[in-house]
Amino acid sequence: MFYLAIDILGTIAFAISGVLVAMEKRLDLFGVFIVAFVTAIGGGTLRDFLIGNTPVVWMQDATYLMVVILTVIFAILFSNQLKYLRKSLFLFDTIGIGLYTLVGVEKGVEAGLLPVMCVTLGTITACFGGVIRDILCNEIPVIFRKEIYATACILGGFSYFLFHLLPMPPQYGYALAIVVVILLRLLAVRFKIGLPNIYNNAK
Amino acid sequence: MFYLAIDILGTIAFAISGVLVAMEKRLDLFGVFIVAFVTAIGGGTLRDFLIGNTPVVWMQDATYLMVVILTVIFAILFSNQLKYLRKSLFLFDTIGIGLYTLVGVEKGVEAGLLPVMCVTLGTITACFGGVIRDILCNEIPVIFRKEIYATACILGGFSYFLFHLLPMPPQYGYALAIVVVILLRLLAVRFKIGLPNIYNNAK
Amino acid sequence: MFYLAIDILGTIAFAISGVLVAMEKRLDLFGVFIVAFVTAIGGGTLRDFLIGNTPVVWMQDATYLMVVILTVIFAILFSNQLKYLRKSLFLFDTIGIGLYTLVGVEKGVEAGLLPVMCVTLGTITACFGGVIRDILCNEIPVIFRKEIYATACILGGFSYFLFHLLPMPPQYGYALAIVVVILLRLLAVRFKIGLPNIYNNAK
Repeated sequence: MFYLAIDILGTIAFAISGVLVAMEKRLDLFGVFIVAFVTAIGGGTLRDFLIGNTPVVWMQDATYLMVVILTVIFAILFSNQLKYLRKSLFLFDTIGIGLYTLVGVEKGVEAGLLPVMCVTLGTITACFGGVIRDILCNEIPVIFRKEIYATACILGGFSYFLFHLLPMPPQYGYALAIVVVILLRLLAVRFKIGLPNIYNNAK
Repeated sequence: MFYLAIDILGTIAFAISGVLVAMEKRLDLFGVFIVAFVTAIGGGTLRDFLIGNTPVVWMQDATYLMVVILTVIFAILFSNQLKYLRKSLFLFDTIGIGLYTLVGVEKGVEAGLLPVMCVTLGTITACFGGVIRDILCNEIPVIFRKEIYATACILGGFSYFLFHLLPMPPQYGYALAIVVVILLRLLAVRFKIGLPNIYNNAK
Repeated sequence: MFYLAIDILGTIAFAISGVLVAMEKRLDLFGVFIVAFVTAIGGGTLRDFLIGNTPVVWMQDATYLMVVILTVIFAILFSNQLKYLRKSLFLFDTIGIGLYTLVGVEKGVEAGLLPVMCVTLGTITACFGGVIRDILCNEIPVIFRKEIYATACILGGFSYFLFHLLPMPPQYGYALAIVVVILLRLLAVRFKIGLPNIYNNAK
């Protein structure tokens, strides 16, 4: 129940980020909807393709589709007001990637993959919706340029396996790993921590 | 037999639309072929990925590949004359999306999906070849910007389930739903009906 | 053992080509890594999606991931020196597409596909990593514009089936077909052979 609520909040946050990018590109109503939908479900879809989990999750349950449709209608109607929600959106989005990462990690565990592959799956689940959103809008994906985003997912994903070694119930480790992703992301943004610069020369 | 003929006409129309976009970008022979092929089979391929129908349809039967190869050769040889065929091409394309939509809807029904997901699958089958074509050519997909295209697929897809409720043989409902997609598209283009504008300010 | 070594050399060459493109676009560390990884494994991943071979190959064995991580670290540390390696890189890359093509062809044979589809699978395995790399970096894929690349894969793929008709052990035909891909590519580059120009008018 709690997880479902977070999952839906994450879907909403991802869908709204899609609406915002699509409206900046002045796509039509259908384009805005598709970009919102792909942002929300793209990562999970790629994850399901990679492990052969078909029909993919969002086809088995209409909840995601309905949540995105309602979110898009709401976001378009109140597009002028959305800017006042930026802080809440950032929070939803951060909670969303925390949960999506761990959902992906667990799918990998269920599929019998190595821990490093489970973490990869989790990171793909959390991050690739945004990558596909940016490709559809003809941009170089934003997470390739200035976000610590993926790094939080990777470290949080590995923390799940560390917590697993400790003497506590597995669902605690699961929840703690979500918290690790969220905290790392919040701290990185708060203290403007980024990846090390790999370019010698200024440009 | 009839459906097969329409299917091949649709494949030809989609492939030619790919050739036209690729030649505008001045891709080489191989690039033109790939873009034509992806336009023709991209939607069905994504549909097959989503429901786990592998090997995907075009790998099981060489017809599609051969039709695209012949179409590309023809289209390049007669590229100067293609502009006189625009009206026929539009008709083929419209018939093509009608058929592709319903092929996708039925695949969804066979996979036991909810009606709304079947309609989604049908729309993906009909529309995503063009989306992938535009991404490969580094354009924002045209159906996100000015086409009523997808809306015709969605409404036609739902009409299939409505016709299903009426006392008539299922293949009639199937054929009628194809006609609905085609008519909606023709009417939208004829009367310049578009999606409602979601932007307040002119730009 | 020999094949594994070649496979790893191919992975390294593809990964380095990804690093070079990504650094030109000034992506961050994570972006460079993802582009390198996708270049190295993208073709094989699409192949596995198409035939339903899941979890995809690189998820079942951490070798590819590890090789790419080490390659990226090395390539970034020595990015100034990489330009002196261009000739070796071209050679690795050429050997890589030779091997990747035949790996894809054999997967198609195992899946019971028609020869023309096996050749298509092989070409996808060898070429689509680079296509996805260019899409992620917001470029029209380079192989659509000026490379004979794919043609070498296609002809080499068909040669496998020709060699199969001759009275020699199958692994000889396999190895010879790899040599055909490599030789065609080297000859095309050496003698500047390209695809025929399909445009009448200069631009």
